[in-house]
Amino acid sequence: MAWEKDVLLVHNEAGARGFLRDLEGGEPVFVCVIGNTETAKIPGISAAGRNPELTDYTPAADVELLLYGECRCIDGVPVTPEGIPTPALITRAALTLADIPVFVVNGGVRVKPLAPFIDVAGNPGADIRTGRAVEGVARVIERAEIAGASFAKAVDYLVVGESIPGGTTTALGVLLAMGVNARGLVSSSMPVNPHELKVRVVEEGLRAAGVKPGDLSGDPVAAVSAVGDPMIAAFAGFVMGAASSKPVVMAGGTQMTAVLSVIKGLKPEVLDNVAIGTTRWIAQDRSSDVRRLVSQIWDVPVVAANLDFSGSQIEGLRAYESGVVKEGVGAGGVTVAATLKTDGKVACDDVRRKVEEEYGRLITMRLQQHSTRIHAT
Amino acid sequence: MAWEKDVLLVHNEAGARGFLRDLEGGEPVFVCVIGNTETAKIPGISAAGRNPELTDYTPAADVELLLYGECRCIDGVPVTPEGIPTPALITRAALTLADIPVFVVNGGVRVKPLAPFIDVAGNPGADIRTGRAVEGVARVIERAEIAGASFAKAVDYLVVGESIPGGTTTALGVLLAMGVNARGLVSSSMPVNPHELKVRVVEEGLRAAGVKPGDLSGDPVAAVSAVGDPMIAAFAGFVMGAASSKPVVMAGGTQMTAVLSVIKGLKPEVLDNVAIGTTRWIAQDRSSDVRRLVSQIWDVPVVAANLDFSGSQIEGLRAYESGVVKEGVGAGGVTVAATLKTDGKVACDDVRRKVEEEYGRLITMRLQQHSTRIHAT
Repeated sequence: MAWEKDVLLVHNEAGARGFLRDLEGGEPVFVCVIGNTETAKIPGISAAGRNPELTDYTPAADVELLLYGECRCIDGVPVTPEGIPTPALITRAALTLADIPVFVVNGGVRVKPLAPFIDVAGNPGADIRTGRAVEGVARVIERAEIAGASFAKAVDYLVVGESIPGGTTTALGVLLAMGVNARGLVSSSMPVNPHELKVRVVEEGLRAAGVKPGDLSGDPVAAVSAVGDPMIAAFAGFVMGAASSKPVVMAGGTQMTAVLSVIKGLKPEVLDNVAIGTTRWIAQDRSSDVRRLVSQIWDVPVVAANLDFSGSQIEGLRAYESGVVKEGVGAGGVTVAATLKTDGKVACDDVRRKVEEEYGRLITMRLQQHSTRIHAT
Repeated sequence: MAWEKDVLLVHNEAGARGFLRDLEGGEPVFVCVIGNTETAKIPGISAAGRNPELTDYTPAADVELLLYGECRCIDGVPVTPEGIPTPALITRAALTLADIPVFVVNGGVRVKPLAPFIDVAGNPGADIRTGRAVEGVARVIERAEIAGASFAKAVDYLVVGESIPGGTTTALGVLLAMGVNARGLVSSSMPVNPHELKVRVVEEGLRAAGVKPGDLSGDPVAAVSAVGDPMIAAFAGFVMGAASSKPVVMAGGTQMTAVLSVIKGLKPEVLDNVAIGTTRWIAQDRSSDVRRLVSQIWDVPVVAANLDFSGSQIEGLRAYESGVVKEGVGAGGVTVAATLKTDGKVACDDVRRKVEEEYGRLITMRLQQHSTRIHAT
């Protein structure tokens, strides 16, 4: 296979090989599900924005970057507090190189993208410590399921990704509520994973909702409503619709296991058509364990894009190698799809080079904007 | 050709033959662009609702019917004041028989469908007599164009239809503002076409906007903003995006010529990839003339589904033969696409039979609901 060195088989190798073979040469579509949760604003929870308030803008800015090659609702691109740029740069590079179309599903955001998006009647999520995190979960799942089914009729396969700051904490919430032993296993966009803080936040949410870990194992809608986020609802619904007839790559890190858990509770038969596609940084992360999470829920294949930024001249990209960001906006799954669609002609190194090029362009553009502004005043 | 008796070549026959040949065997997607305009509430303008106030619900109810097989925001289905049912029944039948997926673009509605839809930042339109009919036209066109381009990457060709009560009057507005001699040429959903009323309404709008017929021939955005409707903006943008790379069937009656006029002013090069697909009822209508309108703008092919309801046992369907409704919700273009996709296996008669079957089912369902309600009280 032309893509062998670029796609790592992380879990359920036999299943992964079969799944990837089915996708070879097919024409995918990428769908990015966005959402906001107030949980992201708890200090220390999310690095998906220069500061907690700015995380409101990150999902909108991410998908603007995918669609336009630049953000519109903010200057520059979303960065962590240390200035490490959004993984949407990777997604954009892979989509561009392999000419893969992109659609946006609004699971529920505070800041709407200045771009077309699919509305599934979602609202932004509350702080999960309230125990009442998401409204209208069943409705959002139903509408997203219809959209997913329509897309599946039109294309060979779907790659579905997400952007929601604070999303690993809400994922932990759903996993614990549904009885998955997820303590210490979910990933983080930060260099040091704040597992204890996340567990404390979730436990406060569960208490407020009047439930104990595992109490909601049979009721995914209640779990997401209590301690989840709007992305999980829309993502699960969309996959339930799409995977009924076509393969779906769930593109993301450990958050995908919360989605998996929801789907398992509502429509498990579609999971034969599902794999998780992520990055090497998630697959090899020592502070989280996607394999152990998946094993507890449903043994879907897990594959990873063999992205390596250690040789990059750009400091902000080299930082990915030390465990910052790691994944997001479908970066890993989209890179895998780009490789498969082009029979290996778009390899991980091509994606890295394209990211460097685009990042350079965006930085230059921003400097020019600043200098224009200075000249103008 | 297996579809010869089912598809009429109405205008530019050579072009139409070539266009249809390119679509044969391809996998289409149907996109329905919806909108509302207060213009529909002027007495005597629209028959797309039992009464003028109910026209607010018609676009939402139409697309719910397409997606669910029944309406959700209203009981029953949209009907004219005489009880003649919506052409969405035809569209639904053709989509179902040929397994064509459907997506909804919200150009700007007062009542949102209880279903997923693509948001392009559109708002409902005002009464065109104000001369300030639509806000944010350029923005809506841009966003819809992006969505159209994404769809075109994913599918073989697009069929785009509309639902907006009052739409032939706003179409007349755009046509006159842009200098097309459209007096007496646009169609109507009513048995007697109220040409004089429509012209009077448009002239009042043009006066309020401070322009004379033809003044805005070079400025489609200004024409739609002054005396158009939100559907036209979103529809034009979507086609501009999609037809840049794939064939697009503009599925509708004389309203399509207003869209054509807008596209001609903004991105004429895509019109080589465009045809109008309509119904026999429009093609043979004596109270309107789609050919003379098209000839004045751009000689795109016009084809028509050879639908014939004269033998139907259902009175509400036989009424289509006396010139009520005639077209809408992409009925004609979708029927053509269903025929082409199935190599003629889905013929116009199959669509008619399916409509009769579904209409029977909906009537029965409604009667049951009523009887349940009576029993419950």
